[in-house]
Amino acid sequence: MVGGEPVLARAVRILSVFEPGRAELGVAEIARASGLHVATASRLVGQLVEQGLLTRTGSGRLRIGMRLWELGQRASPTLTLRAAALPFLGDLHAVVGHHVQLGVLDGDEVIFLERLSAPGAVVNLTRIAGRLPLHVSSSGLVLLAHAPPEQQERVLAAPLERRTPATVTDPDRLRVLLARVRRDGHVVTEGHVHPDATGVAVPVRGRDGDVVAALSTVQPHDGRARTLVPALRAAAHGIARAHGGKDTAPD
Amino acid sequence: MVGGEPVLARAVRILSVFEPGRAELGVAEIARASGLHVATASRLVGQLVEQGLLTRTGSGRLRIGMRLWELGQRASPTLTLRAAALPFLGDLHAVVGHHVQLGVLDGDEVIFLERLSAPGAVVNLTRIAGRLPLHVSSSGLVLLAHAPPEQQERVLAAPLERRTPATVTDPDRLRVLLARVRRDGHVVTEGHVHPDATGVAVPVRGRDGDVVAALSTVQPHDGRARTLVPALRAAAHGIARAHGGKDTAPD
Repeated sequence: MVGGEPVLARAVRILSVFEPGRAELGVAEIARASGLHVATASRLVGQLVEQGLLTRTGSGRLRIGMRLWELGQRASPTLTLRAAALPFLGDLHAVVGHHVQLGVLDGDEVIFLERLSAPGAVVNLTRIAGRLPLHVSSSGLVLLAHAPPEQQERVLAAPLERRTPATVTDPDRLRVLLARVRRDGHVVTEGHVHPDATGVAVPVRGRDGDVVAALSTVQPHDGRARTLVPALRAAAHGIARAHGGKDTAPD
Repeated sequence: MVGGEPVLARAVRILSVFEPGRAELGVAEIARASGLHVATASRLVGQLVEQGLLTRTGSGRLRIGMRLWELGQRASPTLTLRAAALPFLGDLHAVVGHHVQLGVLDGDEVIFLERLSAPGAVVNLTRIAGRLPLHVSSSGLVLLAHAPPEQQERVLAAPLERRTPATVTDPDRLRVLLARVRRDGHVVTEGHVHPDATGVAVPVRGRDGDVVAALSTVQPHDGRARTLVPALRAAAHGIARAHGGKDTAPD
């Protein structure tokens, strides 16, 4: 460790700078965006390249390296859920069009493991490996409704971001909504994330009955949302069956 | 940096210990497998947990954290190719059954970005984020055939692993095979990786005509392999069109 902040924390700060639309950066840009001195950034970038976590392009700029993807990919037990879910997401997508996605809880957010989208589908602010606050999205509401009580209280006690006039940000109204999600086994959110989009989400359960993920669709307000609940539920059952509560990576 | 080896190199050594079938490990196991002192491993594990790159299970053991997957996932331009390819892989899989996969060059190996498999399909030693030597697999041969000449010579000059009696390990025979792959625009390998499996691979090209990936199927020796070449080629064209040479991540 040099100075106050561990090398690892600085390295992660550098890696975090690479975002969709900022896939390729020079060292000076990396230093600026990560708040590190150019000399520090340059030394760490060199080490990250050596480890394959970053890669240099022909013009000497930097990109996330395949090794980083490989390390993240190959061992995470959550990804076996994604693999089990993929055929069901495909079937569902063939029927509902627009967007079909699978999200899991990570910290106090939902992170999306997979998303299938049709060309010309309605606006959808989620993306693969993207995150949304739990109270905002249909997937997040399903995951929050089944999260431990102390996590629910922590999320309800924190400031609740309003994305649209329809986003539920009042803790008491949110408590009622979460109880309804548990009772109904699904949630339909009209315009909570974006005014033009309706989300429908259902829980996906693991072997012990715990909710391990949320399966959702995003589509226009065409009144069709509620009719999709049975298809979503059937797909969620299929995913649970295919995943079989297995939590080690397949070969 | 403490001692001879940079902290980052040690951290990557720890992360590399997590493999399919070893998704959950204790600190002592991590230390043993990574060749680090328990105290060093323990301190680094603490830092990795703090950054979300590892996560602690209920029983205090460690797993790869979602943050590591997220960092690797969200920025790598190669993954936009995977996203563009996914619908075509699905269509192809519906027709050919068994295994359909997409591989790219990383170093002197092929790494598989995606694989769709049918239940009960023939043995297939590739896995998502898995690697194979270039001269062994059908995808690797396609990528090697279109790699820069200096890379081809480097690979041919290195020891060439024999996986089965059918693996081509003679540099001169391999040169002839690579020329044929370039001429034919596809390759069929019977039993090169595993005695029971036939691979068929075709190149996927980027906007500038460069080969950016290999699309392949793995199936039993049922004589059907060659008949799949047109379907693979059409899907490769579709992927190239959908990807459109775009190399920044979509939103």
